[in-house]
Amino acid sequence: MDISTGIGLLAGVIVVATLMLMGGDMGMFVSEHAVIIIFGGSISATLVRFPLTAMLHGLPLGAKFAFTMRRMSQRELIDELAGFAEIVRKSGPIGLEKVEVDDPFLAKGVRFIADGYDSDFIRDNLERDRDNFLTHLDEGQKIYRAIGDCAPAFGMIGTLVGMVQMFANMTDPSKLGPFMATALLATLYGALVANLACLPIADKLHGKQLDEEINRTLIIDGILMMRDGKSPALVREMLLAYLPEKHRHDQAETVPA
Amino acid sequence: MDISTGIGLLAGVIVVATLMLMGGDMGMFVSEHAVIIIFGGSISATLVRFPLTAMLHGLPLGAKFAFTMRRMSQRELIDELAGFAEIVRKSGPIGLEKVEVDDPFLAKGVRFIADGYDSDFIRDNLERDRDNFLTHLDEGQKIYRAIGDCAPAFGMIGTLVGMVQMFANMTDPSKLGPFMATALLATLYGALVANLACLPIADKLHGKQLDEEINRTLIIDGILMMRDGKSPALVREMLLAYLPEKHRHDQAETVPA
Amino acid sequence: MDISTGIGLLAGVIVVATLMLMGGDMGMFVSEHAVIIIFGGSISATLVRFPLTAMLHGLPLGAKFAFTMRRMSQRELIDELAGFAEIVRKSGPIGLEKVEVDDPFLAKGVRFIADGYDSDFIRDNLERDRDNFLTHLDEGQKIYRAIGDCAPAFGMIGTLVGMVQMFANMTDPSKLGPFMATALLATLYGALVANLACLPIADKLHGKQLDEEINRTLIIDGILMMRDGKSPALVREMLLAYLPEKHRHDQAETVPA
Amino acid sequence: MDISTGIGLLAGVIVVATLMLMGGDMGMFVSEHAVIIIFGGSISATLVRFPLTAMLHGLPLGAKFAFTMRRMSQRELIDELAGFAEIVRKSGPIGLEKVEVDDPFLAKGVRFIADGYDSDFIRDNLERDRDNFLTHLDEGQKIYRAIGDCAPAFGMIGTLVGMVQMFANMTDPSKLGPFMATALLATLYGALVANLACLPIADKLHGKQLDEEINRTLIIDGILMMRDGKSPALVREMLLAYLPEKHRHDQAETVPA
Amino acid sequence: MDISTGIGLLAGVIVVATLMLMGGDMGMFVSEHAVIIIFGGSISATLVRFPLTAMLHGLPLGAKFAFTMRRMSQRELIDELAGFAEIVRKSGPIGLEKVEVDDPFLAKGVRFIADGYDSDFIRDNLERDRDNFLTHLDEGQKIYRAIGDCAPAFGMIGTLVGMVQMFANMTDPSKLGPFMATALLATLYGALVANLACLPIADKLHGKQLDEEINRTLIIDGILMMRDGKSPALVREMLLAYLPEKHRHDQAETVPA
Repeated sequence: MDISTGIGLLAGVIVVATLMLMGGDMGMFVSEHAVIIIFGGSISATLVRFPLTAMLHGLPLGAKFAFTMRRMSQRELIDELAGFAEIVRKSGPIGLEKVEVDDPFLAKGVRFIADGYDSDFIRDNLERDRDNFLTHLDEGQKIYRAIGDCAPAFGMIGTLVGMVQMFANMTDPSKLGPFMATALLATLYGALVANLACLPIADKLHGKQLDEEINRTLIIDGILMMRDGKSPALVREMLLAYLPEKHRHDQAETVPA
Repeated sequence: MDISTGIGLLAGVIVVATLMLMGGDMGMFVSEHAVIIIFGGSISATLVRFPLTAMLHGLPLGAKFAFTMRRMSQRELIDELAGFAEIVRKSGPIGLEKVEVDDPFLAKGVRFIADGYDSDFIRDNLERDRDNFLTHLDEGQKIYRAIGDCAPAFGMIGTLVGMVQMFANMTDPSKLGPFMATALLATLYGALVANLACLPIADKLHGKQLDEEINRTLIIDGILMMRDGKSPALVREMLLAYLPEKHRHDQAETVPA
Repeated sequence: MDISTGIGLLAGVIVVATLMLMGGDMGMFVSEHAVIIIFGGSISATLVRFPLTAMLHGLPLGAKFAFTMRRMSQRELIDELAGFAEIVRKSGPIGLEKVEVDDPFLAKGVRFIADGYDSDFIRDNLERDRDNFLTHLDEGQKIYRAIGDCAPAFGMIGTLVGMVQMFANMTDPSKLGPFMATALLATLYGALVANLACLPIADKLHGKQLDEEINRTLIIDGILMMRDGKSPALVREMLLAYLPEKHRHDQAETVPA
Repeated sequence: MDISTGIGLLAGVIVVATLMLMGGDMGMFVSEHAVIIIFGGSISATLVRFPLTAMLHGLPLGAKFAFTMRRMSQRELIDELAGFAEIVRKSGPIGLEKVEVDDPFLAKGVRFIADGYDSDFIRDNLERDRDNFLTHLDEGQKIYRAIGDCAPAFGMIGTLVGMVQMFANMTDPSKLGPFMATALLATLYGALVANLACLPIADKLHGKQLDEEINRTLIIDGILMMRDGKSPALVREMLLAYLPEKHRHDQAETVPA
Repeated sequence: MDISTGIGLLAGVIVVATLMLMGGDMGMFVSEHAVIIIFGGSISATLVRFPLTAMLHGLPLGAKFAFTMRRMSQRELIDELAGFAEIVRKSGPIGLEKVEVDDPFLAKGVRFIADGYDSDFIRDNLERDRDNFLTHLDEGQKIYRAIGDCAPAFGMIGTLVGMVQMFANMTDPSKLGPFMATALLATLYGALVANLACLPIADKLHGKQLDEEINRTLIIDGILMMRDGKSPALVREMLLAYLPEKHRHDQAETVPA
């Protein structure tokens, strides 16, 4: 559970709701007009922009991964892999059968070793899984960014439609108020969808994509070294050496002076 | 048929039409004034921007390819090429004469083998075709992007022209409404043309350009290996090896955890 | 004659004039106020931005080259160069004296051979010409882009000046109309200058710069090979080999499927 | 103490306060409505955008380092390191025990030598510190930039909410003034937060990040050379050679002609 | 004297003044309110953005160099250096004592030779001077760009402050005019400062930075070759060879066809 995504979205909703309630009731901010143009327009444009399969895989996967988080840091992951290597050294591959693993990707790799598959099969299967996963995560990130980029434009379109209707029917300028309020709601919805939800989620997915590429490559390398019966010490040392410089120490507890 | 381009455009039109109908009639949104400035202006600027031949080839080719889609994925394409290699191995090049191929580029390559042309001719002809095609697709993408980039500016120009006329003739402020409504339509049209059609189409063409470069290069390589009588297994293996990493597994049916 | 630049500009003027006439007379769109700020402001800022010599060479050269076009494609150019090499092989350099050449750069090279100058002199002179020409074309492109980038800002400045004058003298709000119309003209002029003329011309010059670099290098290489008495076939083959991939086939008559 | 950050922020506050007081009292510029949306909205979006740990470390570290400054230039740092090397040569590592060092990172390195730790431990420990520090500084820079990028959008959202409330309740247009004033405050706050504080701080942090990467690498290299008993002259020469060209002379007192 | 910077700024001021006078008197465009926020705000933000020393060196050096120009082109510079080499060959280094040199950097190098300093000292001293100079020029360019980037934002802030004051005190809408005029002045000042002065000056400094890097490196190389007693012909040839392609011919008098 990536708690900051949830907290942030919840806090954003509370902030906006507070603001709306401070000025009276929420009712004046409800507009099916705005909902139709922001969501309808953004999704239409995104459908034109991407292949259908990218939409179907990227949108839900992105939503899911914005809220979930790897339980372990890269350093802990390496420790866990070294622990499994220890088990393999002591009890053989069969020893991994009883191991419980939370991460489904790691679990799959461990099961492959326990079941005695050969290295080529394991590498092929896991790399295909990793590439698929990263492709879908990348699509998800691009789709959320595309929606976040065009939502304000559709907000403006909604407001323009509302203003054209308002002006075309205008008889008494002093009665424009409520119509103007409704027209502005589309711009408001578009700005909220983009700035509170879609663009931040795209940025978070981009960060996770970079992390997961390292994590899953670590897991594949670790699993293959275990399969080849490498010693736990060697597994740990080689995986640490693979880490990019800036990730090697991300578990330091304190910020150095 | 790339179904998502069509669905997206159709959905966008329905969304906008719904919005317009919710506020009364569609009539107030029809403006030849706006049509003239958006289409006339954007096309004029695009004519200045690009050579005439780029416009004549790129615009229709782009429109056509935004809506069509390669029937096969890269993996299926390799399977099909390996299948043809099997035929060549069994019945010789002549065996390809009876084969039915949907994709015209692949069909051309297959016919060249069946007709017994030599490798140099085939390579030269197909590479020239591929480069021409990619150049026109790239021109198409750039033209749609250029139109999408300048349409909002011409929308603003149209609205400014309308507002100047409105203000210059203003006698009674309370009668400004309908004129203002008309002036705003140009901005609305410009935003719709850019955000619903041109920019998404340019993005889709960019994606297809990247894909087709790989696809057509695969076909050329496969055709040439067949021409040289390579075995079906070798054809498949070498073509797979040519695939960029992220495209190798794009046929996985399920999203891995 | 690059017909699309002229057609585009003419079409743009017609579109805008039509729009203006549809709303009444053109008179209300004439504003020396707007002309002064857009042209005066943009040229002042461009003078600060570039050295004086760049302005004096780049601006007219850019205007000239936006409207002219190489008569020959690269493939035809190579054919013509090979034809000259044929003449040299048959009648010696002296045979080129009677040849008529349209392109002044190519004509200069041909004259150099006919006059019997040595290779070093020819290379030095032509390369200096080419580099000078490309530098001025590049300056022209940058200057048109700089004007196109700042014209809308000066349009806004003109409108702000007009609005300050209008508001400062405001006594009766209902008489604001004509003043507002005049103020908006500066923004309108700025948007037209940028989006219809300067930015598209800068884009076209950029494209021509890329093409001319290839063309003039082709001519220099071809002239030098002729000077060294290379055979026509070798001249053609080597020049074709120098072409970047995407330019090799730009004479294909049909768009491949 | 980086005096220019403090002076700049103070001067900015004075400028804005002066401006507000010139038009009457400050009271009309106080708006809890604007505070809630700018700070609440920006922080919500930033929480969605980054992992929680990046927020917790990056935000305070960034604030701290925007206001503090390395006491020494790179040239002085090298002089100080060469001085320590002199001490080590004369009195052995033990001589460093009595040395007083201001910079905590350098102090740590000096203490490691005095305490006789081996090279591998020192390098590992100091590099981990440096990487951690740079990672957090980078996170800080990105977070301030993200807040600076979205604050104006939340300002616009706050103003839209205020305008919707104003228009929805509008009965007498002549009483709109105070409501409009309040609505505009959110845009004003957003522009101030972004342009006066967050974006400039992000730029300053970016500059410090580049400097500290060089400084801390210099210190690590210098400490390790001392540990290996290199001569003071060699330490200075090698550290100077490591400096990027443009940093070598940053202590020149006068601007050359 | 770089005449185009001065002409451009002067022309810009005349254009804007003409525009203001056409609408009445200049008095209505004077606003200490706008001066305070544009200059106070931009300088405050720039202080936060850069270290104090960068401000103190970069701002005046940038202003000075935007208006001054190297008297000689690179080709003339090489001729002058070759002339000095001729003197050294004839009369020895002592012959340079009587030479008058305008450019202070070149004069310094010439004096070093006349005074008989050794190569290492000369190179070290001149390179330090050049790097210092380029660093300060780069800082100057960045500072003018930073001011030009944030001035429009502070213009908007000034206008928002004015509008809040106007709306908060609004009793009679028909009297808003003069207040609105004053509020808009801040936006006008911000746009002028950015588009007429700061951004064009930053662009010019960027161009000069590129040129001076070549010029001063040429001078250093030429001085060192003279110091080593190289022949004038060799000095010229080697310096020409060092020139980047596009600078070699920048003295061509005519634009080639």
